[in-house]
Amino acid sequence: MFELAPYLRKQQVRVDAFLKAALPPVTTRPALLHKAMTYSVLAGGKRFRPILALAAAQACGRPEAAALTAGAALELLHTYTLIHDDLPCMDDDDLRRGKPTCHIVFGEANALLAGDALQTLAFLWLAALPAAASPARLVAELARAAGSQGVIGGQVEDLLAEGSRPSAARLRYIHVHKTAVLIEAAVRLGAIAGGASEPQIRQLGRYGLALGLAFQIADDILNATSTPEALGKPVGSDQARGKLTYVAVHGLPASRRMARSLVRQAQAALKDLPGPSAPLHALADYVICRKN
Amino acid sequence: MFELAPYLRKQQVRVDAFLKAALPPVTTRPALLHKAMTYSVLAGGKRFRPILALAAAQACGRPEAAALTAGAALELLHTYTLIHDDLPCMDDDDLRRGKPTCHIVFGEANALLAGDALQTLAFLWLAALPAAASPARLVAELARAAGSQGVIGGQVEDLLAEGSRPSAARLRYIHVHKTAVLIEAAVRLGAIAGGASEPQIRQLGRYGLALGLAFQIADDILNATSTPEALGKPVGSDQARGKLTYVAVHGLPASRRMARSLVRQAQAALKDLPGPSAPLHALADYVICRKN
Repeated sequence: MFELAPYLRKQQVRVDAFLKAALPPVTTRPALLHKAMTYSVLAGGKRFRPILALAAAQACGRPEAAALTAGAALELLHTYTLIHDDLPCMDDDDLRRGKPTCHIVFGEANALLAGDALQTLAFLWLAALPAAASPARLVAELARAAGSQGVIGGQVEDLLAEGSRPSAARLRYIHVHKTAVLIEAAVRLGAIAGGASEPQIRQLGRYGLALGLAFQIADDILNATSTPEALGKPVGSDQARGKLTYVAVHGLPASRRMARSLVRQAQAALKDLPGPSAPLHALADYVICRKN
Repeated sequence: MFELAPYLRKQQVRVDAFLKAALPPVTTRPALLHKAMTYSVLAGGKRFRPILALAAAQACGRPEAAALTAGAALELLHTYTLIHDDLPCMDDDDLRRGKPTCHIVFGEANALLAGDALQTLAFLWLAALPAAASPARLVAELARAAGSQGVIGGQVEDLLAEGSRPSAARLRYIHVHKTAVLIEAAVRLGAIAGGASEPQIRQLGRYGLALGLAFQIADDILNATSTPEALGKPVGSDQARGKLTYVAVHGLPASRRMARSLVRQAQAALKDLPGPSAPLHALADYVICRKN
């Protein structure tokens, strides 16, 4: 019987230790920039994407060392998008993971540049992996997922949608691009870095895309129903801002149904993988019952 | 006798054609984002970095196809730094290359995201090159040059220096990091993409670093002495903002002497390269006599 909670704690410690060791020391010139980068990366994330990358390598029966680096690079990239999302010209949020956002602590210009530098560093970590981990392919996959037709495309459509007429098609575009493609990238990068086969990489991609969409629907549900204490950030902010969310478009019961159905789709994609897939299976259940 | 002006025009047309063909069409969803990216990339830059990358491959007697892609990627990266530099929380500039800056035309959030997406795309273009061009190495070299201990480090120190006591050491740090490392990267990436030898790559690195510092000193001189018409952006803005510049710290005559000495250093580094190095030689002279 697989126990998710201790597994998550163990993997989170492992990812945090890697991030702490691999980030440039905060005394590196310019110290202010490296402090801002470290502040946001080590602000206590769940490390969901790196944990997925590790679990993907494991499910393919492959070594996890390169997947850990790839997962950590994904966490840098994810953190940069959060820093930029929180800026006054974007969502203008003061609180993230229960702590003041990067620009509140370091000022807008330094937060902007810390985000920029974390994106750059994500690609450096991938590119510096040994040839067996297919570094150029990892960079290309992450760049496609994170770029103008991936995460950033989703962010732009999200801003365009604020206060506009709700549309289920646009909503799906936003959630797939803003969130799901990076979760898809997490499992694909873990598998590629570990040296998995092409069919295995495709299987994990299907898992990741379904899981990522479920993850974002669950986020919408939490934003509408949680407390600031449980969530570590304001709740009800989506509605106040006129954001396009699954709760706003489909209502709470239908959103919950869709999230559950996507989780089952994700789990079905794990069939016949050569390594242990219990962690990926349990992680899929977890994304729709988590409290933050 | 090598004629620089027609050479520059020819290479600029070649780079512009590549950029136009390789950028995602402006109709790609989200169209607003792709319009903002294209607007800034095609706003009429000199294409100095891509031209250097091409000239570096040529000077090593190597084919130029991969160097063109690498040079174009450098131009994307350079453009992203300009877009972010111009934002209200940074230099707050309304005019760039004689045109309204990206955030003036598309709004702050879209300019921020267009910059982010251009950085991502630069790494995608490098990573997608064939194995013979050493794509992972190109990504790593660009990421080191562009990251927290390269360009972004220089930008942070530049902001810290505004209105502070002038220091020749800090000034050198800023100019080397904010500008010279990316020009060094331009020639190194061109050489690496073309398949040059390690000694050739190192030679070009020495050329690029000296040239890059001369380039930024020349920028300081232009900002202090040019006209807005010739420069395409406001002049005297460095002084008004209390920026640390070579003109402010060393005065105009000493700045001119240093720039000339660096150009000679750069040219000396070109000795014994197997291909035609006349373009690189002439480009070095050009950086300190250009009008914009």
